Amino acid sequence: MVDILHRVGIKAPTPEMVYDALTTVDGLAGWWTEDVRGNGNPGGKLEFRFPPIGGFDMEVLEARPVEWVQWRVIDGPQEWIGTTIDWELREYGEWTIVLFAHRGWTEPVEFMHHCSTKWGSFLMSLKSMAETGEGAPAPRDVVISDWH
Amino acid sequence: MVDILHRVGIKAPTPEMVYDALTTVDGLAGWWTEDVRGNGNPGGKLEFRFPPIGGFDMEVLEARPVEWVQWRVIDGPQEWIGTTIDWELREYGEWTIVLFAHRGWTEPVEFMHHCSTKWGSFLMSLKSMAETGEGAPAPRDVVISDWH
Repeated sequence: MVDILHRVGIKAPTPEMVYDALTTVDGLAGWWTEDVRGNGNPGGKLEFRFPPIGGFDMEVLEARPVEWVQWRVIDGPQEWIGTTIDWELREYGEWTIVLFAHRGWTEPVEFMHHCSTKWGSFLMSLKSMAETGEGAPAPRDVVISDWH
Repeated sequence: MVDILHRVGIKAPTPEMVYDALTTVDGLAGWWTEDVRGNGNPGGKLEFRFPPIGGFDMEVLEARPVEWVQWRVIDGPQEWIGTTIDWELREYGEWTIVLFAHRGWTEPVEFMHHCSTKWGSFLMSLKSMAETGEGAPAPRDVVISDWH
């Protein structure tokens, strides 16, 4: 098993803004993909789409304000199914620190390399949205390669 | 042992430009840090500095145009010493694909999370430099957190 790990620090007006960006459809639409629907509360299901290439369905395993969110991938690319995505939030002075982990990849395939960089780019979009009000969600996301 | 993995695609005028960005002092200064000196050829030593917080010394283990570069960290933060940094280049149509791996971390510490995101950001700087002539090397690098 191999994991994708990231850490960003966000100077958000409040840490609740970062938590809401991970647990509400409006928040998620502001940094990951505009095409999202569902319920970000524990037991809920979130459906993220990236037309025309597909998307991900997540089951929300946990969501504890303002410190922890965990999803499990229940549909999407085969490599993603069954993996978990962990969001740990910590307040540190004026910063909200986000510790991110996408855990449970079976093999470090080339697609995992891509997803690692793409998650980093989307975390910068989350940071930008929370700090300035303007993120870069799909379909306006930053192109990192031929795989978009 | 845990690894940081990334993948970016670069529409460089030539793949040699990407290779040169990894093996020459002028190239490295354009995307990672302006404060770099040394020799990027096999057996050479490269010294990267990020004033005022320190830096990294790398031994160049391999450099094969236009496909593979490998460094070993010989001085720097304790967590980095002995780790290796691999750069695999592949031509794919108009793209030069960069498969990056920073291998050999002993533990997935919080600093590793930070370095993963920061590497992603610097890879986007490499991409930008090769595509547009303008990267974002230190001290003009993108701030991702309180750890810079």
